[in-house]
Amino acid sequence: MQAVHNIAEICARHGITDVVLSPGSRSAPLTLAFARHPNLMVRVVPDERAAAFIALGMAQVQRRAVVLVCTSGTAGLNYAPAIAEAYFQRIPLVVFTADRPPEWIDQLDGQTIRQHNLYGAHAKGAFEFPVDTTHAHAKWHAARIVNEAINLAQAGPAGPVQVNVPLREPFYPKQGEEIRYEQDVKATRELPTRPQLSTAVLRELLDAIRSASRVLVVGGQHPADKELLQELRKFAAAFQVPVVGDLIANLHLPTPSDNEHTLCPFGRQDIVMAAPDQNLKEALKPELLITFGQSLISKALKLYLRNAQPAQHWHIQPAGAAADTFQSLTKVVSMEPVDFFASLLAEESRRAEDSTEGVQAQNPRFASPSHTVAQDATRVAKSLISTTPLTPSSNGQLEAVSSAKVEYLKPWLAAESRATGFLQEFMQQPRQPFNEFTAMYRCLQALPDRTALHLANSMTVRYANILGLPSKLDIEVFANRGTSGIDGCNSTAVGAALAQPERPVVLLTGDMAFFYDRNAFWHNYLTPNLRVVVFNNHGGGIFRIIDGPRQQPELDEFFETRQALTAENTARDFNLRYFQVSSFAELESALPVFFALETGAALLEITTTSKINAEFFEQYRAAVKVAFA
Amino acid sequence: MQAVHNIAEICARHGITDVVLSPGSRSAPLTLAFARHPNLMVRVVPDERAAAFIALGMAQVQRRAVVLVCTSGTAGLNYAPAIAEAYFQRIPLVVFTADRPPEWIDQLDGQTIRQHNLYGAHAKGAFEFPVDTTHAHAKWHAARIVNEAINLAQAGPAGPVQVNVPLREPFYPKQGEEIRYEQDVKATRELPTRPQLSTAVLRELLDAIRSASRVLVVGGQHPADKELLQELRKFAAAFQVPVVGDLIANLHLPTPSDNEHTLCPFGRQDIVMAAPDQNLKEALKPELLITFGQSLISKALKLYLRNAQPAQHWHIQPAGAAADTFQSLTKVVSMEPVDFFASLLAEESRRAEDSTEGVQAQNPRFASPSHTVAQDATRVAKSLISTTPLTPSSNGQLEAVSSAKVEYLKPWLAAESRATGFLQEFMQQPRQPFNEFTAMYRCLQALPDRTALHLANSMTVRYANILGLPSKLDIEVFANRGTSGIDGCNSTAVGAALAQPERPVVLLTGDMAFFYDRNAFWHNYLTPNLRVVVFNNHGGGIFRIIDGPRQQPELDEFFETRQALTAENTARDFNLRYFQVSSFAELESALPVFFALETGAALLEITTTSKINAEFFEQYRAAVKVAFA
Repeated sequence: MQAVHNIAEICARHGITDVVLSPGSRSAPLTLAFARHPNLMVRVVPDERAAAFIALGMAQVQRRAVVLVCTSGTAGLNYAPAIAEAYFQRIPLVVFTADRPPEWIDQLDGQTIRQHNLYGAHAKGAFEFPVDTTHAHAKWHAARIVNEAINLAQAGPAGPVQVNVPLREPFYPKQGEEIRYEQDVKATRELPTRPQLSTAVLRELLDAIRSASRVLVVGGQHPADKELLQELRKFAAAFQVPVVGDLIANLHLPTPSDNEHTLCPFGRQDIVMAAPDQNLKEALKPELLITFGQSLISKALKLYLRNAQPAQHWHIQPAGAAADTFQSLTKVVSMEPVDFFASLLAEESRRAEDSTEGVQAQNPRFASPSHTVAQDATRVAKSLISTTPLTPSSNGQLEAVSSAKVEYLKPWLAAESRATGFLQEFMQQPRQPFNEFTAMYRCLQALPDRTALHLANSMTVRYANILGLPSKLDIEVFANRGTSGIDGCNSTAVGAALAQPERPVVLLTGDMAFFYDRNAFWHNYLTPNLRVVVFNNHGGGIFRIIDGPRQQPELDEFFETRQALTAENTARDFNLRYFQVSSFAELESALPVFFALETGAALLEITTTSKINAEFFEQYRAAVKVAFA
Repeated sequence: MQAVHNIAEICARHGITDVVLSPGSRSAPLTLAFARHPNLMVRVVPDERAAAFIALGMAQVQRRAVVLVCTSGTAGLNYAPAIAEAYFQRIPLVVFTADRPPEWIDQLDGQTIRQHNLYGAHAKGAFEFPVDTTHAHAKWHAARIVNEAINLAQAGPAGPVQVNVPLREPFYPKQGEEIRYEQDVKATRELPTRPQLSTAVLRELLDAIRSASRVLVVGGQHPADKELLQELRKFAAAFQVPVVGDLIANLHLPTPSDNEHTLCPFGRQDIVMAAPDQNLKEALKPELLITFGQSLISKALKLYLRNAQPAQHWHIQPAGAAADTFQSLTKVVSMEPVDFFASLLAEESRRAEDSTEGVQAQNPRFASPSHTVAQDATRVAKSLISTTPLTPSSNGQLEAVSSAKVEYLKPWLAAESRATGFLQEFMQQPRQPFNEFTAMYRCLQALPDRTALHLANSMTVRYANILGLPSKLDIEVFANRGTSGIDGCNSTAVGAALAQPERPVVLLTGDMAFFYDRNAFWHNYLTPNLRVVVFNNHGGGIFRIIDGPRQQPELDEFFETRQALTAENTARDFNLRYFQVSSFAELESALPVFFALETGAALLEITTTSKINAEFFEQYRAAVKVAFA
């Protein structure tokens, strides 16, 4: 039992702070080990499916591993959906599954399945804790495994790791018996390293960027990272390169030192790329595409880039196999995107410095070269936006910005601005029927600053990506786009709310995702900062909106799946303040009360009609086509 | 699309009638194929975890494969708990998981995971449907795979099989395009065979049975099988062998031709084996243990038999690897238990006939020898029960029944009778506090005849196994004892209710199992024959009852997991008639109304206090110790 007890101590030494466990008998030694540890916060969530997504929501915020503990049998299998999401979203989880000892597998004992490597291709690794740790070597092995598992989970690309822990009775200490956390426990921490490119390669890349006239940066899903943002904006400004990002790329966040970032991000791709304007699409085609992060929401952008077939596509990610999302991948750069952009900027500045050394060596502006580059670039960008003709940089340092680049930037700026204008006008048109698309727009506009915004899968995240966020707000966006399932959206938001109680956590979700994962709320922990908005159209409204199913006679029964639930009873069950609206007037009056801080967890149910939603969204799509004809 | 469409046709040709599908986009071609087939009943259940257990509940009743269909991504992972249960409970499921084509795996597309062999060690097989079926060989391959999958799922030991179906767009037929079910589709059915033992081996076994004085038959979980029961009872009578079975062995069912079966089953093992009477335990020890079926509920019996270490243990099961549940396995007989017992009886009759040929050849009684043996044995049993001295068989045919066997039988009969008397007396004691143990006893006594009784895992199934069923009723018992999880108990009962609408389906469950699986009810199908009894003690009461956790300071928070929900809102959400009781008087008046046929689905919530339950159960345990001191 001592070796099992030390698991908690080793986790704590690695800086892990949070444990989500589901009750069980076989897992009792693990429960005691974690529950008694002074530096670990242990929460109990009975439904393992919800528990695992709650842990994922916490790890997403904490950016370190969260521990999961469950008993033997199917308990661990209920983790599987969250494990897969964590694997593809690269979130570190260390999963301890209690098990019977190997001799009792397949012997018809209760709660016994084949737990070795339970998550197959969706875990970064699977360890077997030794059954008997009386031998010194076995005890060393036991401690080593825990260290290896934590390091593996947290090493890039982060992900879930299973440690299967076979346990023999007795599971409990004798009365009065105290268990210690051994202070000489083995702790082996893997130090983080960051790969860098050689100067030679950096120069090569810079040459390529300089010589290409149509360079486009696209960010996939990425946690908020203001350091990255700053470098990215400097890069965009210095090279006059448009940066496109979906909401989940978190490129929209303000950074303290840079309030003007007209080139990063462009976020209207769902409108621009859905438009039929072939000339525009031609004008936006990149020849060099630079991407980083994980998946895109915007199917329109994805298909556009696949079709565009840029001559070069570089993907930047710190570790792991790179996806060839656009079928044109030519270079993989295994480094942090922030380092990639910063290195290029630094190298470019050195180059600029070298070339002007003779004449400008004494100029103090060059003490911080990239800053200067950025300032000049901003000026260029501004001039573009105000549609005044481009004034060439007076001192010629910005030669990376060829006139061709500026020509490429123009249609991007124009399209973004046109799409923004179109959307604002469209959303504000009077005499709309009450519909979920507009209702979501108003919710998004009403979000409190510093919100952690969780977008559920299916239509919610797609709508939100079209609608965008109010500018200048510090709203970080989360979505389970590793696997894009609806199965754990509530739980992930609950985990986020638990992990950052000082911040509003808002979940926007549809009725299918919401009811699927009601057990997210089935535990004893308060989440006063949580606000859940349920867009209830009583079914999988997405199937009425996408082409294909809506033409089938099976639409109602087998695709949209009419469901009759309202969220009221769920709100009652879990003590969530409940608001229900079915008109714009009700919505407008509910929103400020609903979002008001320090009023406790709340649920806002926005009831709409699927057919009206589909009709209105069809109007929207038709309007896009007209606006971008 | 034609090859995908034919999947449904092949399933129908194999006699499959039911499909449970969860909506999705990638799975649309499968949805259309199944939904349009005239001979398949397709039901839509949005939560895949519930969908899979519903399918399991249906297949349990139908004793043939049920089809599951889901979309790509984590949808299929939500099936995993039910898949594991089906694997260990040997229930045939054919699972079609829609997938992206292989070139798009790991390319950051939505709802894409690594679906090949998704269920690992818990599926009997995993097939990959061909991506492209334009080539004639590929089309043959596609059809072959479906046939192989169905045959594999249904061949003994039955179990779940995955067919992963990669699908490229378009997913839908063009408007007006009709899809046909090809009438010359390939259907290859595997014919069922039954293994038999040679006469020589049968004689060897009979010799062993005859020469052993202490022969015990124990049945593990087994679907109701009246043919088996009849043979078993004949066997028990012929050889004067006690047959022990938990409720889930379904040995208690009445058979038309045999209303007296005093030797089959003995069902009081939870009382008898929990008693401290060492002399009794010594007297009950078998030297030859014959078992069949799957797991036991009774931990007391399991530990008793492990400790007893019989010289011989034969396990009879039609197929698959045999578990050595009692650590004393000596023979595995891979045949149907019904065939095993019938063969032994037939061989014994032949032997008896041979040995008496000279003197009794004309005696018409020997035309049906085993019947005669059984009649004589019943007489012996009756004489034992009435405790009149044993009269030796007048004509000496029953030499298989040695006097030693009768001596071994006596304490079994006495213990069973004593335990039954004890329990009746204990349960009827006046001035009890309202508690779940007694409440369950009263529910069991009030069950309608022909009920399919579903027992949820954790305390429910254990209590019920102690309490037993009212005699002479035809009540078939189900429980997910393959993995003994609480995760799909509601759904399994819902599946059972859908599959046999003509029969009352009663689920007894605790609050943890009930709330865990509320999505069982989240669909549009009526189950007017379903009655759910929720024993709500607001937590995992089991942890207050088993030794170990109840001595820990962490009991309340980390083991019992207090939970505040009542079932009322759930009943309201799903239109279940709702009854709530918290006294014996309320229970007694509610039960007849609740169980009344043709009044529609209903939920009875029995509210008790965990501490009172634990105290009362402790009293019961103490009383057992006194009664069997």
